[in-house]
Amino acid sequence: MERIELRTHQRAEMLDITAAVARAVARSGVRTGICQVFVPHTTAGVTINENTDPAVRQDVLHVLESAVPLLDPAYQHAEGNSAAHAKSTLVGCSHIVPVEEARLALGTWQGIYFCEFDGPRHREVWVQVIGS
Amino acid sequence: MERIELRTHQRAEMLDITAAVARAVARSGVRTGICQVFVPHTTAGVTINENTDPAVRQDVLHVLESAVPLLDPAYQHAEGNSAAHAKSTLVGCSHIVPVEEARLALGTWQGIYFCEFDGPRHREVWVQVIGS
Amino acid sequence: MERIELRTHQRAEMLDITAAVARAVARSGVRTGICQVFVPHTTAGVTINENTDPAVRQDVLHVLESAVPLLDPAYQHAEGNSAAHAKSTLVGCSHIVPVEEARLALGTWQGIYFCEFDGPRHREVWVQVIGS
Repeated sequence: MERIELRTHQRAEMLDITAAVARAVARSGVRTGICQVFVPHTTAGVTINENTDPAVRQDVLHVLESAVPLLDPAYQHAEGNSAAHAKSTLVGCSHIVPVEEARLALGTWQGIYFCEFDGPRHREVWVQVIGS
Repeated sequence: MERIELRTHQRAEMLDITAAVARAVARSGVRTGICQVFVPHTTAGVTINENTDPAVRQDVLHVLESAVPLLDPAYQHAEGNSAAHAKSTLVGCSHIVPVEEARLALGTWQGIYFCEFDGPRHREVWVQVIGS
Repeated sequence: MERIELRTHQRAEMLDITAAVARAVARSGVRTGICQVFVPHTTAGVTINENTDPAVRQDVLHVLESAVPLLDPAYQHAEGNSAAHAKSTLVGCSHIVPVEEARLALGTWQGIYFCEFDGPRHREVWVQVIGS
């Protein structure tokens, strides 16, 4: 399992980690199988979405911000990051991408994004490739 | 890896792909393992939900529509499908189903659904079965 | 594949199943691989989130309750649990956790939670460990 270190710079952002995950797949030597991208944090997530227009990421973050208010008098957790925990559950902290011919098999417009919801922070992503 | 071709007919719909995925599992020859269902698009997703009353799918789509407005002056992406991108991240574009005794192991009421959020379009679903 | 039986006690709650999943990993004998946690129900889900302050779970459930109204005149499904079906799709009914050195590889603050959205009920969680 490879551990990729990241530095996020905003409270909420989507960082493109496609190239780093692809390098882990190449190093694994696996030709056919699956690649797991796992985020070992509870106020972050991982998603796959459009890799071309950065406005898509802004809009996805905006939708999450609208659906999950940053402040809510009903929140009981004292650290002030309840919204980030909820977004982590909605987006998910794990993703699986197929591996074919020793490469990540993604659609043309897909990239893999680390989702920071409570930054800026130092973060990790774990990548594991299974197959033969 | 098998590629299943789909034709969607509405802007938003949930298409039952359980039988097509089950056939891919049967063809794989795998008896015990996992089946990955991967959607290579950024305005669609895949989910597992009730396979009996079609009203459940209507209600799930309605909840998504309510939580993610189709139009929002804050959207910056110029193609008008930002809501579809956000729904793709919320629902997810990949699912894993266990395989046991050479068959998909689903709960009694579970079906696998391709989720179209920006149709109608031609779409693909990739199915990969791992195990022995 | 192991089947874990659960009893939920509220309409909506998050039950810590980390220890039960860890035991299934230990019994599997797998040292390196992945562990799939699969919920065979359509009004429940599984997520990974903070394992320390129980208020985090309350806040995550509160966010879901706010984003997905329990009652909505637009719901068509007659059983009154459309919100639970929608939450199941948003949270997801399957999760994958890496296995390393014969143990679940989770972040320091991560626990695995069964999410009940239409309880109280008897429920099952299926755990499958793949690897070598």
